[in-house]
Amino acid sequence: MNTVLKMTAKRQLFLMSSSAVHGYEYLQHAEQDLSNYFKKNNVSKVLFVPYALADYDRYTEKVGTVLKRWGFDCEGVHSKPDPVAAVREAQAIYIGGGNTFLLLKTLYDRGLVEPIRDRVLNHSVPYVGSSAGTNVATKSIRTTNDMPIVYPPSFDALALVPFNINPHYLDPEVGGTHKGETREERILQFHEQNEAPVLGLREGSTLLVDGEKATLIGTRKARLFRQGKEPEEFEAGADLSFLMKL
Amino acid sequence: MNTVLKMTAKRQLFLMSSSAVHGYEYLQHAEQDLSNYFKKNNVSKVLFVPYALADYDRYTEKVGTVLKRWGFDCEGVHSKPDPVAAVREAQAIYIGGGNTFLLLKTLYDRGLVEPIRDRVLNHSVPYVGSSAGTNVATKSIRTTNDMPIVYPPSFDALALVPFNINPHYLDPEVGGTHKGETREERILQFHEQNEAPVLGLREGSTLLVDGEKATLIGTRKARLFRQGKEPEEFEAGADLSFLMKL
Repeated sequence: MNTVLKMTAKRQLFLMSSSAVHGYEYLQHAEQDLSNYFKKNNVSKVLFVPYALADYDRYTEKVGTVLKRWGFDCEGVHSKPDPVAAVREAQAIYIGGGNTFLLLKTLYDRGLVEPIRDRVLNHSVPYVGSSAGTNVATKSIRTTNDMPIVYPPSFDALALVPFNINPHYLDPEVGGTHKGETREERILQFHEQNEAPVLGLREGSTLLVDGEKATLIGTRKARLFRQGKEPEEFEAGADLSFLMKL
Repeated sequence: MNTVLKMTAKRQLFLMSSSAVHGYEYLQHAEQDLSNYFKKNNVSKVLFVPYALADYDRYTEKVGTVLKRWGFDCEGVHSKPDPVAAVREAQAIYIGGGNTFLLLKTLYDRGLVEPIRDRVLNHSVPYVGSSAGTNVATKSIRTTNDMPIVYPPSFDALALVPFNINPHYLDPEVGGTHKGETREERILQFHEQNEAPVLGLREGSTLLVDGEKATLIGTRKARLFRQGKEPEEFEAGADLSFLMKL
């Protein structure tokens, strides 16, 4: 990562655990908060990055239909002749979920990692991520839940925040008979090899970042894992800005 | 992979979905089949590879205690001054579960991928894997369930069989509220990017390979995924040798 962060710029991030939440239509759980986020940042058109799924057109159509209903235009980066130029001109960048390995590999293959990082960190272009799009916004994809279906040139990601997130965070099943590792056990194994804190975002939760201020929003608590410490629960509305100053 | 496979050698593989199974003590579900496998192959001492977990001594002790109770000696490869020589001299090689990325990276770092492949394919040294140890026995680790906590130099694995396995295979939860991808959805995404068949081995199942013959053993059915085809279920006892001839 060679981008020099100008400390005067204020990054704007909206990092969702997931786009689908039980009991809601697609993206509906975030309608009010995400609409407000776009309006506050004077966004009328969103550049959507569909690289985490195989069918770019269909995925962009799915997300764009919802955003248009809310009053925002949406274009897929894959429909632009020059994706890097499209990123440089975007009012807002929204990276959707799917497979995190496929997503990060495609961002590297198309030379988009540095341009996105530059726009968000140095030019305050609002960023939206859900699931895999939230994974790639963090320090690395080392806490994704996805299957490694392709081999990216690195697990280092956009590093828009200096820690990791585990989206779709899942509590251990009470009385479960499955013997595969629980999510918490997997994150503990991560901390045997890595120092970065991991924020476990349950479905329905979003981390909202405004410059150096980070706030948990949505309907659920979040679980924070730090190397050598007991995991901690934070209520919706909690100020998590301390994670930005690592 | 530079090893030339001598077609006269008969590979011997015992690939377990998991070492822990609901309702059994550690490894107990495999006691009879694994003991018979060792006896048939004249194995009295097993070289255990504990690289998938952080605490090698403790892990080797845990597995060794069970094997000794069954009448087999067990040594950890990490306790040997020269791991490559230890692999060359081993009567049998047993790679335990844990984190698949950590396991494969360590096998590459210590130069053990080619030596293990050579011993198993060209010298019929019996191989035992469970979970991550089963993942690395296959074509690649691209169908592991684990978190990518470290970055291996490749996802290509030992390729002792020409297909992939998904251990701890899990059926979709009926009436579940979690919106993360099901295991089947993840494997379908794998097949959007890769051709290799994927054998979903439920906990309690083992794939037993004798040369070109592959048999499903244990207590559960297995689910086979092939690119562009409907998934198929196979009963315990099924002959899966057709997978060896890809």
